[in-house]
Amino acid sequence: MANEYRPTVLAIDTSGPVAGCALLREGRIAHLAVMNHGLTHSETIMPAVDAALQAAGLSCRDVDVFAAVAGPGSFTGVRIGVCAAKGLAHAAGKPCARVHALEALAMNFYGFDGLCCPILDARRGQVYCAAFDMSRGMPQRALEDAAQPLQEFLARLPGDRRLVFVGDGVPVHAEAVEQALGERALIAPENLRDLRADAACLLAAARPDTWAPAAQLRPIYLRAPQAERERKKRAESTM
Amino acid sequence: MANEYRPTVLAIDTSGPVAGCALLREGRIAHLAVMNHGLTHSETIMPAVDAALQAAGLSCRDVDVFAAVAGPGSFTGVRIGVCAAKGLAHAAGKPCARVHALEALAMNFYGFDGLCCPILDARRGQVYCAAFDMSRGMPQRALEDAAQPLQEFLARLPGDRRLVFVGDGVPVHAEAVEQALGERALIAPENLRDLRADAACLLAAARPDTWAPAAQLRPIYLRAPQAERERKKRAESTM
Repeated sequence: MANEYRPTVLAIDTSGPVAGCALLREGRIAHLAVMNHGLTHSETIMPAVDAALQAAGLSCRDVDVFAAVAGPGSFTGVRIGVCAAKGLAHAAGKPCARVHALEALAMNFYGFDGLCCPILDARRGQVYCAAFDMSRGMPQRALEDAAQPLQEFLARLPGDRRLVFVGDGVPVHAEAVEQALGERALIAPENLRDLRADAACLLAAARPDTWAPAAQLRPIYLRAPQAERERKKRAESTM
Repeated sequence: MANEYRPTVLAIDTSGPVAGCALLREGRIAHLAVMNHGLTHSETIMPAVDAALQAAGLSCRDVDVFAAVAGPGSFTGVRIGVCAAKGLAHAAGKPCARVHALEALAMNFYGFDGLCCPILDARRGQVYCAAFDMSRGMPQRALEDAAQPLQEFLARLPGDRRLVFVGDGVPVHAEAVEQALGERALIAPENLRDLRADAACLLAAARPDTWAPAAQLRPIYLRAPQAERERKKRAESTM
């Protein structure tokens, strides 16, 4: 354990309604800020990053990797977080780490004896969803990502496991989940419902082999953005 | 659900090495700050409270109850948090809620199919410890609080349940726990290891019947403070 590599990780999440920033240092969560005030992420995130570094007595150059929650999530939110991490990493000459939003959410149920099912409100009657086996601790992928109606997602879930639902889709869909699955479904309480940037720090720290130059950091989209869908539709209708 | 009482709760935790502050509003965690920088809690906590309220656009008078994590924990830390909550509540004319540190820690493993065992470093070769059954969601008390050597605590634990260990005693005692219990013991990862003030908000909100005037808020001590122990010892030696 003495020679274990323990990087300093700064993680940014603006992929959903909650903005977050966290700092992992010497293997401990040194700082975590979670803000869910309906304010613009582009205005709140950089002051939060600055506050985290200042409180720790660190500068950008002391950070080993800048992690961004890269999606799936709000298109604008994902871009804000990815761009903030890119900018910081580029300025400091450090790499970026790309964190998957659904996997980071599953970290809230480390060790849960069943599957953790993150559901994010994807609008248009869909959820961004996946499932992870948590019984061995860290998330093990059980179902691939999808953007689909809730009922289609529920139909993909195995019938013989306990299931816990997390994410910003929970307030909207909890009742439908409980009706469909009964006692087999657990709904995350508020303290474990949303993505926390400290989980993003841990995922980034666990995979230094995935760190890459800032220019290579890309968002994770499960659907084309609305603007692209509309452009495609217009192009098709004028053919 | 429409008529459910959803109080605005501000929670303060300075009972251990991590200082925290959280705001629950309209049933959602609106703000959470976690600071583990080795700084003095008495200096960091009030600016953190101020930042939480400002970000939410609230004043003290908009808060329905001020919750403090009242222990067990560091004697000085517990007093700082309790006094901060008392001061705010008194000034705003609002009640206080007394949150148990070990129970708030257990909230990190809501729904875990077994017992959550918080262990806090109590110095003098002891841990503050308890166990909570988490399988039905919210913590159900399984073992009473104690201040005792780790091995005595482990001997009190049932042999037929999965166990997860959380709290600031984990970094010190994880190896001993794993040696004694093997695969039956899970060690909380860093993102779920420490007390989070948002869990304190939820416990306070769930029990409005326990809210009391600020003057009645008392720390939870499992042992007499060192100063009192020494006074008693001196008194006995001069008898």
